[in-house]
Amino acid sequence: MEAVSKGKVGASEATAKLKHLPFEDIGFAKVDHHRALRQGYAEVVFGKGKTAGQVAEIVRAMVRKKASRQNILVTRADAKIYAAVKRVSGSARFHPVSGVITIERSKEITGKGMILVVSAGTSDIPVAEEALLTAQMMGNHAEHLYDVGVAGIHRLLEHRGMLTEARVIICIAGMEGALPSVVGGLVPVPVIAVPTSTGYGASFGGVTALLGMLNSCASNVTVVNIDNGFGAACVASCINRL
Amino acid sequence: MEAVSKGKVGASEATAKLKHLPFEDIGFAKVDHHRALRQGYAEVVFGKGKTAGQVAEIVRAMVRKKASRQNILVTRADAKIYAAVKRVSGSARFHPVSGVITIERSKEITGKGMILVVSAGTSDIPVAEEALLTAQMMGNHAEHLYDVGVAGIHRLLEHRGMLTEARVIICIAGMEGALPSVVGGLVPVPVIAVPTSTGYGASFGGVTALLGMLNSCASNVTVVNIDNGFGAACVASCINRL
Amino acid sequence: MEAVSKGKVGASEATAKLKHLPFEDIGFAKVDHHRALRQGYAEVVFGKGKTAGQVAEIVRAMVRKKASRQNILVTRADAKIYAAVKRVSGSARFHPVSGVITIERSKEITGKGMILVVSAGTSDIPVAEEALLTAQMMGNHAEHLYDVGVAGIHRLLEHRGMLTEARVIICIAGMEGALPSVVGGLVPVPVIAVPTSTGYGASFGGVTALLGMLNSCASNVTVVNIDNGFGAACVASCINRL
Amino acid sequence: MEAVSKGKVGASEATAKLKHLPFEDIGFAKVDHHRALRQGYAEVVFGKGKTAGQVAEIVRAMVRKKASRQNILVTRADAKIYAAVKRVSGSARFHPVSGVITIERSKEITGKGMILVVSAGTSDIPVAEEALLTAQMMGNHAEHLYDVGVAGIHRLLEHRGMLTEARVIICIAGMEGALPSVVGGLVPVPVIAVPTSTGYGASFGGVTALLGMLNSCASNVTVVNIDNGFGAACVASCINRL
Amino acid sequence: MEAVSKGKVGASEATAKLKHLPFEDIGFAKVDHHRALRQGYAEVVFGKGKTAGQVAEIVRAMVRKKASRQNILVTRADAKIYAAVKRVSGSARFHPVSGVITIERSKEITGKGMILVVSAGTSDIPVAEEALLTAQMMGNHAEHLYDVGVAGIHRLLEHRGMLTEARVIICIAGMEGALPSVVGGLVPVPVIAVPTSTGYGASFGGVTALLGMLNSCASNVTVVNIDNGFGAACVASCINRL
Amino acid sequence: MEAVSKGKVGASEATAKLKHLPFEDIGFAKVDHHRALRQGYAEVVFGKGKTAGQVAEIVRAMVRKKASRQNILVTRADAKIYAAVKRVSGSARFHPVSGVITIERSKEITGKGMILVVSAGTSDIPVAEEALLTAQMMGNHAEHLYDVGVAGIHRLLEHRGMLTEARVIICIAGMEGALPSVVGGLVPVPVIAVPTSTGYGASFGGVTALLGMLNSCASNVTVVNIDNGFGAACVASCINRL
Amino acid sequence: MEAVSKGKVGASEATAKLKHLPFEDIGFAKVDHHRALRQGYAEVVFGKGKTAGQVAEIVRAMVRKKASRQNILVTRADAKIYAAVKRVSGSARFHPVSGVITIERSKEITGKGMILVVSAGTSDIPVAEEALLTAQMMGNHAEHLYDVGVAGIHRLLEHRGMLTEARVIICIAGMEGALPSVVGGLVPVPVIAVPTSTGYGASFGGVTALLGMLNSCASNVTVVNIDNGFGAACVASCINRL
Amino acid sequence: MEAVSKGKVGASEATAKLKHLPFEDIGFAKVDHHRALRQGYAEVVFGKGKTAGQVAEIVRAMVRKKASRQNILVTRADAKIYAAVKRVSGSARFHPVSGVITIERSKEITGKGMILVVSAGTSDIPVAEEALLTAQMMGNHAEHLYDVGVAGIHRLLEHRGMLTEARVIICIAGMEGALPSVVGGLVPVPVIAVPTSTGYGASFGGVTALLGMLNSCASNVTVVNIDNGFGAACVASCINRL
Repeated sequence: MEAVSKGKVGASEATAKLKHLPFEDIGFAKVDHHRALRQGYAEVVFGKGKTAGQVAEIVRAMVRKKASRQNILVTRADAKIYAAVKRVSGSARFHPVSGVITIERSKEITGKGMILVVSAGTSDIPVAEEALLTAQMMGNHAEHLYDVGVAGIHRLLEHRGMLTEARVIICIAGMEGALPSVVGGLVPVPVIAVPTSTGYGASFGGVTALLGMLNSCASNVTVVNIDNGFGAACVASCINRL
Repeated sequence: MEAVSKGKVGASEATAKLKHLPFEDIGFAKVDHHRALRQGYAEVVFGKGKTAGQVAEIVRAMVRKKASRQNILVTRADAKIYAAVKRVSGSARFHPVSGVITIERSKEITGKGMILVVSAGTSDIPVAEEALLTAQMMGNHAEHLYDVGVAGIHRLLEHRGMLTEARVIICIAGMEGALPSVVGGLVPVPVIAVPTSTGYGASFGGVTALLGMLNSCASNVTVVNIDNGFGAACVASCINRL
Repeated sequence: MEAVSKGKVGASEATAKLKHLPFEDIGFAKVDHHRALRQGYAEVVFGKGKTAGQVAEIVRAMVRKKASRQNILVTRADAKIYAAVKRVSGSARFHPVSGVITIERSKEITGKGMILVVSAGTSDIPVAEEALLTAQMMGNHAEHLYDVGVAGIHRLLEHRGMLTEARVIICIAGMEGALPSVVGGLVPVPVIAVPTSTGYGASFGGVTALLGMLNSCASNVTVVNIDNGFGAACVASCINRL
Repeated sequence: MEAVSKGKVGASEATAKLKHLPFEDIGFAKVDHHRALRQGYAEVVFGKGKTAGQVAEIVRAMVRKKASRQNILVTRADAKIYAAVKRVSGSARFHPVSGVITIERSKEITGKGMILVVSAGTSDIPVAEEALLTAQMMGNHAEHLYDVGVAGIHRLLEHRGMLTEARVIICIAGMEGALPSVVGGLVPVPVIAVPTSTGYGASFGGVTALLGMLNSCASNVTVVNIDNGFGAACVASCINRL
Repeated sequence: MEAVSKGKVGASEATAKLKHLPFEDIGFAKVDHHRALRQGYAEVVFGKGKTAGQVAEIVRAMVRKKASRQNILVTRADAKIYAAVKRVSGSARFHPVSGVITIERSKEITGKGMILVVSAGTSDIPVAEEALLTAQMMGNHAEHLYDVGVAGIHRLLEHRGMLTEARVIICIAGMEGALPSVVGGLVPVPVIAVPTSTGYGASFGGVTALLGMLNSCASNVTVVNIDNGFGAACVASCINRL
Repeated sequence: MEAVSKGKVGASEATAKLKHLPFEDIGFAKVDHHRALRQGYAEVVFGKGKTAGQVAEIVRAMVRKKASRQNILVTRADAKIYAAVKRVSGSARFHPVSGVITIERSKEITGKGMILVVSAGTSDIPVAEEALLTAQMMGNHAEHLYDVGVAGIHRLLEHRGMLTEARVIICIAGMEGALPSVVGGLVPVPVIAVPTSTGYGASFGGVTALLGMLNSCASNVTVVNIDNGFGAACVASCINRL
Repeated sequence: MEAVSKGKVGASEATAKLKHLPFEDIGFAKVDHHRALRQGYAEVVFGKGKTAGQVAEIVRAMVRKKASRQNILVTRADAKIYAAVKRVSGSARFHPVSGVITIERSKEITGKGMILVVSAGTSDIPVAEEALLTAQMMGNHAEHLYDVGVAGIHRLLEHRGMLTEARVIICIAGMEGALPSVVGGLVPVPVIAVPTSTGYGASFGGVTALLGMLNSCASNVTVVNIDNGFGAACVASCINRL
Repeated sequence: MEAVSKGKVGASEATAKLKHLPFEDIGFAKVDHHRALRQGYAEVVFGKGKTAGQVAEIVRAMVRKKASRQNILVTRADAKIYAAVKRVSGSARFHPVSGVITIERSKEITGKGMILVVSAGTSDIPVAEEALLTAQMMGNHAEHLYDVGVAGIHRLLEHRGMLTEARVIICIAGMEGALPSVVGGLVPVPVIAVPTSTGYGASFGGVTALLGMLNSCASNVTVVNIDNGFGAACVASCINRL
């Protein structure tokens, strides 16, 4: 930009260059607008470990690109981060159960089918909501089915119809993490399993559920990190656009 | 001692008896005949970590007590141990799938109901057989239901009748160890869960199944050590005599 | 549905009933009244990971069914949850040591024998109390024996009489978790072992006690999750009704 | 079938039943022909933990259904198992690098795009081959790109074209398991990561690679169990049919 | 001692000196002025686990030695410690992102080349800053390159020039810790890898990154403890003086 | 019993007394006065996990036995517990660095030699002080040597004389826990190693130090639990009375 | 040095000798004769990880010093190592249960009291024998008490007399490792606990026993590495000479 | 190459291209000649997990480039691999202790100083030899100092002169892995620590040593993977050329 200001490079040339510059350097972060373009994703900020100021700064860089119609998503945020983001974009909405902030700039549905978010217990809902909102902000029709843990198998079987309507299933469970195995056996579509850190004692903050899911005897199950509802929805969305 | 104080048993006789009670010292082991009496168990030798000679010696001490009608069970044995035991007792039978040796001295059924051994996959059968034989040798009516893993839930539901007939269920699974949660939710009786060391990679020799079972969301499930079909049957038998 | 097809029950009536069966959907949770019926359990809410509002809502759905005589139990609750529950049911009582809330609607004893809760150290009492209250609310005669750790074996042997009177024993210990092995060797009845998260350093939040119990050399011992006094009492209760 | 042969059940009635019979019980296993139908998979036998005889028996049940055009796949097999299977089906082929046995009964391509199997090092090839053969036997066009580990990033970038042609990528790596993160960042399609047990010391039999993949900073990556090339290909195939 | 034997220094004087050497005992700590001399390091206090008073006391002992030109560094400090140190030395400066306090007494550059601090994500910056400041206080020319994680490999390749200018590289990453492998493959100089505790779930507080780095397939990579930016800079500095 | 045999105490009175011994039941705890007698220990209360009220109650039961000259020790206490204990016994003293409360009732030295407490770093001092005070309250002459970690081996060798004067050495270290190996090689007496939870990252709260000590190549080293300064002093004291 | 002071050995000769001491360099090993002198130990070779040739070479260096009356001990040896050692010293004896080789050169008892080796199960005997032989070769009166596991507490209490006669107790157990806690509570002397790698499943090769022992609620218990019977006997011997 | 054979590309043009081709594709591996050039390393093959044939094939590709003067190194080889390599290059030499094969094509010393390999015990020698040979084949003057573990600190201090002569130190130890901390404190140069998998029980195959080294209190210590003598020598060599 200094080159531009000194007249060495023409403005239009610079603009052209910027279009191809794969990332925008705002000091402590390199905002990767192209990834959103490349992958059809919403623009995303992972809030944890960043200050409210840093998050707001990154969101500002995203919002500034007015032409963009990409939705903006901040995950793992809290009230303080939301306050800072709200000052940058008035249309920001906070979802306190999951700590997600959404800035909706497009309602276009680009995913081909329905993404179903299935969860085992009441305490898995925060992760489930993160997955649900992410899937929706990435242009998918997404629904949910909560509290259908395997110890009451009839609750799950009761909703078998809903399961078979989904094109991709996100399956969220803590404790023994058995739900994806049962769901995976009931449907022919890919199941993304998300272990949650709910539970106590030998649940080891989600490790037991994670291991259970990695050992699932259903062969259409893959796994993401503990509590990673966002990641599951990214993959589901990426599959749903195929 | 009451008998002594009341003059029914002479002091020296008592002393002699006491010498052989409550355990018989054969050098490297103290054979606890009383435990069998006390707990109604068969007399049991854990074969692993003992030489064929040691096992045969212990069995000899058990067989020697002719009046006893307790069945004798050797677990974790192999062909070599069996050969040594066979020399001590001609009625010994070897079950190669589970490595169990049985010496049946009584066919009396003392357990009040049926013990059902349910297992998830073909490779869990060795542990299931150990449980089944142990339960039977301890005087129980015991049946089995194999290869009903949760990824094909219809296979399990097909046998729901059998599940409801059991007084105690032993539920054996490797990999994610989800079977006890589903079974536990279908029946009102106690379910003893046995993780098995089948599987690979992140099954960690049964640790994943163990952790899954300890975190079971069904509240009638308790757990024993990995591959401990014997222990599960002991507890089931002990419950079935109540 | 048979009743409907045979004309005994009108379609709209059936639809209404179905709404309440086999579980009642209150949005974030599916209250499973049937499990209580099916398994003879009290109706139970696991408080941890739920908001005070959610717990109260679930309790309200339970209390609403006036005909029911099932006791109601909320575990892992705190003063805030208690306040919310108290507003829903005036007869709720809070037990601060264990964080249990009880709503007693029946004093009927349905368990056949006595359930004894044995614990090793003073700091295991919260878990012991959770087990004791759960056993009692599920219709059992339950007693306790506290502070009888194995490093002072005479304290345990002093109470041998009490041990032999029990039909089922719940044995609670932290640190090395050795108590169930000793107790298991003294009685012929099932022993449900509960590791506790007391201790420090290499106790790893109860993992050491858990592993010790899983490796118990007493063959009438089974294990539940760390600090799971509730689960132990469920299983004990389920055995005690056999 | 005995009932049919004895005239008790009519042939058409039997056929109808078979269509809905969810599994065929051959004693130690319940062969689930329907899963193959339901999920479009090849019929699969997991060889590890089964005897050569058991595997051959299961394959025989599959081969017997002549009308079926499903390919048959045995994974984790060895020369001994192969010999037994060969006796049952002359068209069986053994792939010693991966231990896979294939019986090809159909060459139909049902997957919509190309599945690319990318692997990091020479010692990851056995797992890569298992994935490749599974994908092919399940009716997919599948290619491979070997030895493109991240410490020589130019080797991977050189093949960027191939990466962008794939509809689904299976990415196989041991040691630090970094390859899926780099590949995931280069493509907009789903990446199924497979950790391998290659490496030594702190690779802990694949655990390090597994953990690395679960923590991938690329958001289109999901993970399956260590060395589970088969599972990765199942999921990839299931996605590729959408 | 040579000086003494040659008569240049009196015995009592030597004894007095020895009392203060090679370390100065201030009760709860033995301040090792010699290590700084011996190793050319700045004088360093590790703040964590020490009270503000203790840190200030140790700094006072360092500052007291006026002749010394060694820079002083306090790591893992907070505002409270800074306040106490500030009272001891007015020239102390606090760097809140990393919790480092610096007291600059010399600007001499003794390192032969440039030390480059490369980090993967925004949340790795605190550790990166600790490394950067440490390297600078130890007399090195040090630069940084932030937010160049491997899932956007182009961001890193864009700065390849900077990488090749460095004499030693410190490479900081959390989550899967893959950055050092890629960087190591691009340069012929030593790469010191620092895992960070950023991430969540299966990142296990930096363990995953640590393991990934230990298994790096690039052979010019060594590793230090999680979050140990200070240690990495010490080693880098020690190499840069060779 | 001596009193009885000498006629000083009547048989029935003795029997009554024995009924209250070997432990006194104060409801939530069984105070074991006999252990102190049996083992020559001070009377001890482990404060962690007990309320201030419970600790004070136990101390009251100890203090009540006026004839006793046993010192009283409360470990893992805090200011709140101290306030409660102070009300029970005015002579109670609080040591805030280690959280120990001492009530000295005897200054008699019963240990035969000197117990030396050696520690590696400043942050190990709390554990070292717990060991020091415990050893002293149990009637030993005990000294300390702080901040002699192995990375400055000259600091340790400087004090070799002190090491050789000790009859038992307690050696306290965090991080890599190497000090006991070096100390053990320098002396012929038993070395009790205490790992501390100081450190960060891969120190895993003391596990690394613990493992290091268990693998010590010096053969006169044994180990106690992480941070267990009290336990180390108990064993040292018990050895020192031999 | 005594020889020097008495004029028997010239100063320069002594200096020369000292140059070759405190260890003798035989290429791949530095034989530390002084440690034996310094610590009163027998001379010891750890056989595992050394070739038969290397062990024999080290033993030859020990035997060569004819004046020495130190016993020689080789641990973790096998028949092959024994054959090689036998060629070097005809008086070598092999103990196959424990894999110990002994060369007795002195029968002097230097330990002040009796060392008792107590073990829990038959499969702990190899470790117990290693401890027993080591204690004896180091000049102690040592006895043993086998097969007294805690699940049959009467077997242990029966031998209480023997326990109270010991000056130091070595307590060996696998599985849950509870024996030292019970033994420690019965005696006032130091108890050295040795976990063994016997057991299966969740015994994790002795880790469970190790953790149990580290968390022992008896305060006179310290711990050595898994299966380290030798180390336990070293410490016991070192205590027994005090 | 097909293009060349078909005349489409001239031979010299092809040769030019090959010079810049960063790797040579031999099917199952991409031989990276450039890395050797780029990093000054010898050409290296990691033998483990490759068949004898594969290793020989890769070596053949290396030997074929006659102009090259790079030494060739095969690590983790065995007699079988050696036989295959020997057929490809007659000058290959096998070092059985470490399993290294060397093909020396240049004796040029390019490293600026001496690399010293220090190891703790006899059983660490295989790893030490791998490091030593690697350092030498990469053009360094390298020496070794064996069997100087910390429990006999005088053995190490005796050789302090040698330590101070080194420009880089590779420090190899198993068990508690304490050696690098002591060595690091004695020298001002970088110390590369290599944990070894020697030891037993709680050494966990080298994990304890690894953790100890990562927590070293000496600040000039970095760490490589367990048993990775090769990697340590690479880094040392890379530093030694600076």
